[in-house]
Amino acid sequence: MRIRSGVSGFDDLIGGGFLPERLYVLSGPPGSGKTTFTAQFVAEGLRNGEQCMYITMHETREELVNDMSSYTFGFETLTDSDNFRFLNLVSPKGKHVLNQFSQGGGSSSVKSLTDKIVAFVNSRNVDRLIIDSTMLLRLFFANGSEEMTRFLTALKQGDATTLLISEMTDPSSYSDEHYLAHGVVFFHNYLEAGGMTRGVQVIKMRGTNIDCDIRSVEFTEGGLVVDPSTTVET
Amino acid sequence: MRIRSGVSGFDDLIGGGFLPERLYVLSGPPGSGKTTFTAQFVAEGLRNGEQCMYITMHETREELVNDMSSYTFGFETLTDSDNFRFLNLVSPKGKHVLNQFSQGGGSSSVKSLTDKIVAFVNSRNVDRLIIDSTMLLRLFFANGSEEMTRFLTALKQGDATTLLISEMTDPSSYSDEHYLAHGVVFFHNYLEAGGMTRGVQVIKMRGTNIDCDIRSVEFTEGGLVVDPSTTVET
Amino acid sequence: MRIRSGVSGFDDLIGGGFLPERLYVLSGPPGSGKTTFTAQFVAEGLRNGEQCMYITMHETREELVNDMSSYTFGFETLTDSDNFRFLNLVSPKGKHVLNQFSQGGGSSSVKSLTDKIVAFVNSRNVDRLIIDSTMLLRLFFANGSEEMTRFLTALKQGDATTLLISEMTDPSSYSDEHYLAHGVVFFHNYLEAGGMTRGVQVIKMRGTNIDCDIRSVEFTEGGLVVDPSTTVET
Amino acid sequence: MRIRSGVSGFDDLIGGGFLPERLYVLSGPPGSGKTTFTAQFVAEGLRNGEQCMYITMHETREELVNDMSSYTFGFETLTDSDNFRFLNLVSPKGKHVLNQFSQGGGSSSVKSLTDKIVAFVNSRNVDRLIIDSTMLLRLFFANGSEEMTRFLTALKQGDATTLLISEMTDPSSYSDEHYLAHGVVFFHNYLEAGGMTRGVQVIKMRGTNIDCDIRSVEFTEGGLVVDPSTTVET
Amino acid sequence: MRIRSGVSGFDDLIGGGFLPERLYVLSGPPGSGKTTFTAQFVAEGLRNGEQCMYITMHETREELVNDMSSYTFGFETLTDSDNFRFLNLVSPKGKHVLNQFSQGGGSSSVKSLTDKIVAFVNSRNVDRLIIDSTMLLRLFFANGSEEMTRFLTALKQGDATTLLISEMTDPSSYSDEHYLAHGVVFFHNYLEAGGMTRGVQVIKMRGTNIDCDIRSVEFTEGGLVVDPSTTVET
Amino acid sequence: MRIRSGVSGFDDLIGGGFLPERLYVLSGPPGSGKTTFTAQFVAEGLRNGEQCMYITMHETREELVNDMSSYTFGFETLTDSDNFRFLNLVSPKGKHVLNQFSQGGGSSSVKSLTDKIVAFVNSRNVDRLIIDSTMLLRLFFANGSEEMTRFLTALKQGDATTLLISEMTDPSSYSDEHYLAHGVVFFHNYLEAGGMTRGVQVIKMRGTNIDCDIRSVEFTEGGLVVDPSTTVET
Repeated sequence: MRIRSGVSGFDDLIGGGFLPERLYVLSGPPGSGKTTFTAQFVAEGLRNGEQCMYITMHETREELVNDMSSYTFGFETLTDSDNFRFLNLVSPKGKHVLNQFSQGGGSSSVKSLTDKIVAFVNSRNVDRLIIDSTMLLRLFFANGSEEMTRFLTALKQGDATTLLISEMTDPSSYSDEHYLAHGVVFFHNYLEAGGMTRGVQVIKMRGTNIDCDIRSVEFTEGGLVVDPSTTVET
Repeated sequence: MRIRSGVSGFDDLIGGGFLPERLYVLSGPPGSGKTTFTAQFVAEGLRNGEQCMYITMHETREELVNDMSSYTFGFETLTDSDNFRFLNLVSPKGKHVLNQFSQGGGSSSVKSLTDKIVAFVNSRNVDRLIIDSTMLLRLFFANGSEEMTRFLTALKQGDATTLLISEMTDPSSYSDEHYLAHGVVFFHNYLEAGGMTRGVQVIKMRGTNIDCDIRSVEFTEGGLVVDPSTTVET
Repeated sequence: MRIRSGVSGFDDLIGGGFLPERLYVLSGPPGSGKTTFTAQFVAEGLRNGEQCMYITMHETREELVNDMSSYTFGFETLTDSDNFRFLNLVSPKGKHVLNQFSQGGGSSSVKSLTDKIVAFVNSRNVDRLIIDSTMLLRLFFANGSEEMTRFLTALKQGDATTLLISEMTDPSSYSDEHYLAHGVVFFHNYLEAGGMTRGVQVIKMRGTNIDCDIRSVEFTEGGLVVDPSTTVET
Repeated sequence: MRIRSGVSGFDDLIGGGFLPERLYVLSGPPGSGKTTFTAQFVAEGLRNGEQCMYITMHETREELVNDMSSYTFGFETLTDSDNFRFLNLVSPKGKHVLNQFSQGGGSSSVKSLTDKIVAFVNSRNVDRLIIDSTMLLRLFFANGSEEMTRFLTALKQGDATTLLISEMTDPSSYSDEHYLAHGVVFFHNYLEAGGMTRGVQVIKMRGTNIDCDIRSVEFTEGGLVVDPSTTVET
Repeated sequence: MRIRSGVSGFDDLIGGGFLPERLYVLSGPPGSGKTTFTAQFVAEGLRNGEQCMYITMHETREELVNDMSSYTFGFETLTDSDNFRFLNLVSPKGKHVLNQFSQGGGSSSVKSLTDKIVAFVNSRNVDRLIIDSTMLLRLFFANGSEEMTRFLTALKQGDATTLLISEMTDPSSYSDEHYLAHGVVFFHNYLEAGGMTRGVQVIKMRGTNIDCDIRSVEFTEGGLVVDPSTTVET
Repeated sequence: MRIRSGVSGFDDLIGGGFLPERLYVLSGPPGSGKTTFTAQFVAEGLRNGEQCMYITMHETREELVNDMSSYTFGFETLTDSDNFRFLNLVSPKGKHVLNQFSQGGGSSSVKSLTDKIVAFVNSRNVDRLIIDSTMLLRLFFANGSEEMTRFLTALKQGDATTLLISEMTDPSSYSDEHYLAHGVVFFHNYLEAGGMTRGVQVIKMRGTNIDCDIRSVEFTEGGLVVDPSTTVET
């Protein structure tokens, strides 16, 4: 079974969709389409009646909804559903929700952020999970790479199909998450002849015969649209 | 509703103006026009009777007014109004003003700089807010990226339309603020054939169909003028 | 005697196969084929009735098997054998297994991770050993380079033919393991004209007359296939 | 009113001269002309009967005078005047002079270097001030960027027209002082076809319509001479 | 008198051989031929009846002998002699040997690693000494550059002709040892048109009129062979 | 009066010789000729009956003499004179000599290395002084840049004409000493078409009308020879 991304044309690059219950990393510079991609992914899931969860460290639910309201894929209406959960880890409400997951079955009342998030995600039957983003997660992790590795390992063993936004501007300087994830999608912004050329590229997708070319991607009224037949020259 | 920038030609690049109550980052090398842009933005607001606030860490009000007095957009006259507030965070007066916001409703008399600034901004009905600059803010934040993220998150949730000056010379090495902001505008200075070519580029603008080309920008008597029909080749 | 890699065409580059009981490093960017190569290496060994051990810091046995199940080299069936051992160093079970090796013959109950892993490997008659990966090992080693050197030195003196996955994206910035290993194989991913060209290159192979050209490598249904007669231009 | 630089041809690039009472940064590699420029600036002031002060961290007055004695702009004669003050911050005499400014009006006998220098400068009616250099100032400042910002802010609010020498070799890696100064002048040394081509470029000059081209500059018997009509190709 | 290297063609580049009792550094990327060069250097010495010592931090004697056994210069037979001493500094035996040199003539029982190694080398009449390598030595030196300088200075003043393997991949980023050594030989590996071109270059050789061109070098059955008449284009 | 360098052709680049009693920096990669230049400079002084001092941190007097014995400028004979003093700061004898300068006129028996060296140099009437090198000096200075600045400032105020060897491989990444010195000479080694092209370039020479072109330099039997009429193309 394949999980459809909700982004027109994209699934053709990865054999029809994402393999379920795996961890995928979306990387690219500011304004390259990472957030819009995740919103379309969530909208697709909600249209199918799936449980979707959006975990962020810097956005309110209102901001996200407003930002996506100019597109026609129905984010506002779809997310106004019990199947959608939004968690801002730094808001008072978000902290309160998380802390409910810090009292385990026994005496240990101290749990790491990783443990709390994972316990919270596991308590729901989340089908699609978004984490925005690794740059911010690193700020909250006391010991950088080590905790990040634990967190990513835990996500990989969960039941959700997870998209992790990973800020990254140089397509050749990889981070831990790129090596650990099952798949890596890179969004390109080329400054060319005074303008911007956009592309999307599947760098890695374990167990899938992928199209690794940089394919054209555009922002349209309906959100991101990939043209799997057009290669972007670098 | 769109917020007009006050910079001739610029609003054509972003669908008629900035979306209100959001956070925008202006980046670029020294002398590229960041400060002049913010002065024109403030002047535009004051002409419309809006509340404007300018928070800086290195400039006196007199210096800023003098620097802008050679332009014809009327900065000196317009800012001589109760609608304009100027706050230098490192001057004795600026510190005094801020400290009034450190006594909250209760016992906690210790507040972070972020809390004080946000409380101060929120105490006025600020429509347009300028923060100059991230480089200097980082000096005042005890724990760099973490506090900066808190500060930016707080600004995003405030009611002002905010321009944040972010020193940055390499258009491909982004900082936290570029990922967190709703929009990013980059000012280019190209050394070409012994001279300087200037350009402005909208890198990112959530929820807006933007023109991402590098457009020509010039310093004129009336301030910065963007020519939205001329692309600058890189 | 030469150890066949199980990767079609690869052994032609190294004189018929790996020299036994030595340490080899596999390096390259995400998605370049390092993990698939090790899976084919293990499958080859199991087909020959050899003892194979896979030590990882981020993958479950199920994930690895699933990831390789789309290939036709029979990983799932072959690894379902007593000759295959899988150890995840960060799982509770993996930690428990390792700790059995922390009580030596005497009083010293404290052993370093290196000592435990080496004792465990030596307790079995491992013919083929995979370690995934140096990036993650470094996280577990308290004093980086020094412990890594001890670990690699110990592996070199063991009896297994060892493949060590070493994340590395720039083929000219070598790490300790590249200098210490008996052999180094590099997987290349070139972004060219909007697409990805893949290559494999034997950088170093002590005591062997090697083909150092970058040879074409492709992902096929049967796993990685090297074409030793096709050179990839850089 | 404009302050003439004393460097032939240079004032044409900046609208007739420097705006008074502001802070300007001179940057460039060793041997590019920064010191000679400041000496001509001082000589021009002394010819006009202005108070000039030269603050250095590494030069004796004798060395500076000797170095400039091969030029014909009369540095030795002009500086032999009560209008010229020379202060070496690391010489015993310099330290003694500065310490006189560490006893303020009250009990606080401990003052930072910034406070002492500013108090000393303000005690004279300095018209033209030279600080040589930021690289050395940083050595004396306990907490780098923060104290440097305080120092530059204080200079900007003083009454002198200040030239600050800032060592910098890469014209695109700016430091704090380039962002904080009212103006930035860059001296270029190009290694071209085995020789050196020299240029001067005004990067930034607040409130002034500047010529940003790289203009030819030469060392002559009369000191630096700028040819505002000749552009240097990079 | 000149010390022949044992590498065919190499001595033509350095006036007939190495000057005796000096320190030479061999640098280059993994697989470029540094270790093979030292083995040929040792074999040449043993053929002449000289005392040779090989100090390593990561190799067993067996490994080194095996690695060189595929060549025809007779390393295995020649090193099976009392004139050859092999010391692995990290093996228990190596540590035991070294510690015999930590009890000096008096009370000071604590000696640095440098002192022990130098005392050990001086206790034999070593003619040819190999140290493999600086990267590993740095791990054992508590205070990096300072101890390395002491060690190199001590080696320079000893009586052996010493080859020091120094890992280094960028031929323009030199380390302390390159400045301190009497001579520096660099091994090049060029990735060109999909293949590897090999070269050797004498960067420095005090007191000798050297050939500084990059000369062709190949791995042959007889070991490394330099062709002093063929220049490798970069 | 000008101080002749002793290097044929070089003085033509700097107006006939060095200005006396100043500090000059010689920079360049290993094997580029820095040490040979200083030996010729010392030989020239000794031929004129001047007092010469050579301070090093890594060379014995014997090594230096041997290294220069293959040249015909008579270093061995000339330095066998009471006018030549050689001081190795890290040898027991060198330390003993220096410590005689640590008891000043009073109670302060603790003096910094800078103070001791300067006191020693000043106790002789040194005409020509060589310091080899800044890389090593930094190892001995507890607080890097600050002590280096003090040391260089002290040297500049002494009476000797000083050549300071400063290891530096990238001609555009300058260090403190390049900014502080009166003059900077750079030795170039270009790897071109498989060979080495040598050049010397005067980057800076205060108070002197210099030739800044990169001029050809060769190692000959008589030492370094500059051809002031041949420019080396980069």
